[in-house]
Amino acid sequence: MGKKVVVALGGNAILQAGQEGTWENQYNNIKGTAKYLAKLIEEGYELVIMHGNGPQVGNILLQNEEAKDVVPALPLDAISAESQGFIGYMMIQALEEELQELGLNKNIVNLITRTVVSKDDEDFKDPSKPIGPFYPEEEANRLAKEKGWTVGEDAGRGYRRLVPSPQPLQIIEADAIKSLAEGGSIVVAAGGGGIPIAKSTNGYEGVEAVIDKDRSGYKLSEEVDADVFMILTDVENVFVNWGKPDQKALEQVTVAEVEKYVEEGQFAKGSMGPKVEAALNFAKSRKGATSIIGSLAKVDAALRGESGTIISQ
Amino acid sequence: MGKKVVVALGGNAILQAGQEGTWENQYNNIKGTAKYLAKLIEEGYELVIMHGNGPQVGNILLQNEEAKDVVPALPLDAISAESQGFIGYMMIQALEEELQELGLNKNIVNLITRTVVSKDDEDFKDPSKPIGPFYPEEEANRLAKEKGWTVGEDAGRGYRRLVPSPQPLQIIEADAIKSLAEGGSIVVAAGGGGIPIAKSTNGYEGVEAVIDKDRSGYKLSEEVDADVFMILTDVENVFVNWGKPDQKALEQVTVAEVEKYVEEGQFAKGSMGPKVEAALNFAKSRKGATSIIGSLAKVDAALRGESGTIISQ
Repeated sequence: MGKKVVVALGGNAILQAGQEGTWENQYNNIKGTAKYLAKLIEEGYELVIMHGNGPQVGNILLQNEEAKDVVPALPLDAISAESQGFIGYMMIQALEEELQELGLNKNIVNLITRTVVSKDDEDFKDPSKPIGPFYPEEEANRLAKEKGWTVGEDAGRGYRRLVPSPQPLQIIEADAIKSLAEGGSIVVAAGGGGIPIAKSTNGYEGVEAVIDKDRSGYKLSEEVDADVFMILTDVENVFVNWGKPDQKALEQVTVAEVEKYVEEGQFAKGSMGPKVEAALNFAKSRKGATSIIGSLAKVDAALRGESGTIISQ
Repeated sequence: MGKKVVVALGGNAILQAGQEGTWENQYNNIKGTAKYLAKLIEEGYELVIMHGNGPQVGNILLQNEEAKDVVPALPLDAISAESQGFIGYMMIQALEEELQELGLNKNIVNLITRTVVSKDDEDFKDPSKPIGPFYPEEEANRLAKEKGWTVGEDAGRGYRRLVPSPQPLQIIEADAIKSLAEGGSIVVAAGGGGIPIAKSTNGYEGVEAVIDKDRSGYKLSEEVDADVFMILTDVENVFVNWGKPDQKALEQVTVAEVEKYVEEGQFAKGSMGPKVEAALNFAKSRKGATSIIGSLAKVDAALRGESGTIISQ
């Protein structure tokens, strides 16, 4: 059996800055991504593929809002499920086309995935993650009152709804994902980090939150017993001393080295920080676990140890 | 291992006539349905659960239409994928709650499912299935011109878009569904009959069509090697000589008997006809295959042979 690799795709794998977000835009981007992934499958890697869903959830929220007088709006967890359905569908279709070109015949499936969070998570007290449309300040305040939302200014572009981004505790579908992957299927799963659910009196209930995809990627990699957890982004390496004369790209590094850099505050909180944290957590989880942060275009080289930032014990 | 049963739920398992279609409406209906299904799981049946998606696809189409100036509208196959995502999510959550109450711990998963159709299917020439919102005649004609739609009057309530409802030829995810079910998972799959796709030069492409859920249910039952294919509806039995003095509920019947009734034209084309056809096809597919048409409330008795119309060779 090949190495089991969990790949967390960056946002631009689906939608690129300035694009309108038509079906064609998204499908073409995914086709480009699929080319690289198909190559890995050809080389015998077992892939579990995760993707983001921020812009797509934003669009569905907007559709719900615009149509609210004729169609009852759905809660955020249901919208997250919708986005997993359609983004994953694009992925499996695109990947199948690429595999067909390579003469490969593999099962590729899209599994709706739920991620458990705790309602006691600190982020529920102070929601931090902006989602959906921008509103003028006055309307944002009205909506906050009407719907019980937290709202806040986002990057000087207007006001948005803020929702919690709690820590993922468990990927409910991990067993099924593992057995599908080990049975030879390519699995698209945990899109957008998973649909956020929390323990209720019986079972689980959906919660209005979002989950960081890379954090969920770490959990998923651990739970499916992956060999490699790979976070794809738009840069080839993680850097230390960024922007200084002694700036340095990290290549093969140990957990201990990266922990030292984290202590030094080397990684920006909103961007590379969470990725490094997720990668570090997986590499720490057991001997032999490898995390990679790198670029899609060099994914192949990264798995051969020749590109990206590669973290292990 | 228990008997493998494919259950095709009727539309009112999710949304009932006159309901507004809020999340709460739908979730409560599904909770009611889940109670009956949980009972079957407790008795050891392996379930693959299919559901309709007509009203939900209609709602998402309407949301796409209302928001089209701010969010690019998605094609019908993508909308079908969205509906599978969120309806299946409701199902697995509801079923998990019911199993928890019974003290049972099972994996329950929602697999996005695609169904192959042929572009040469007769129905592409003469689309028959109304979907989405009603329009006044004039607007319907304008949309037909603008978007290349076929439109037609629907039951005297206005004009709607008509799409093809081709025969399902293959359920792409059947292997994965089978292996998940045989591995002990309860699988929600092929919602709305599956996302319609057709062979393209490389792989498959989505098509603007809908698929009859019960027809797909027959295909799926055959492909996952089910013991029983069960179509749930709002009546307890299929009747012959309906509305006549000698009207009779069918109970245990053979394929040959049902074929005779079909030849006599006993079953209404738009309602019981397609269900009987699907049930008959599965029962004919091999010795030992059993099809049941019955009601949700008596699903348990039907599997013991004590309710419903039960067809076998």
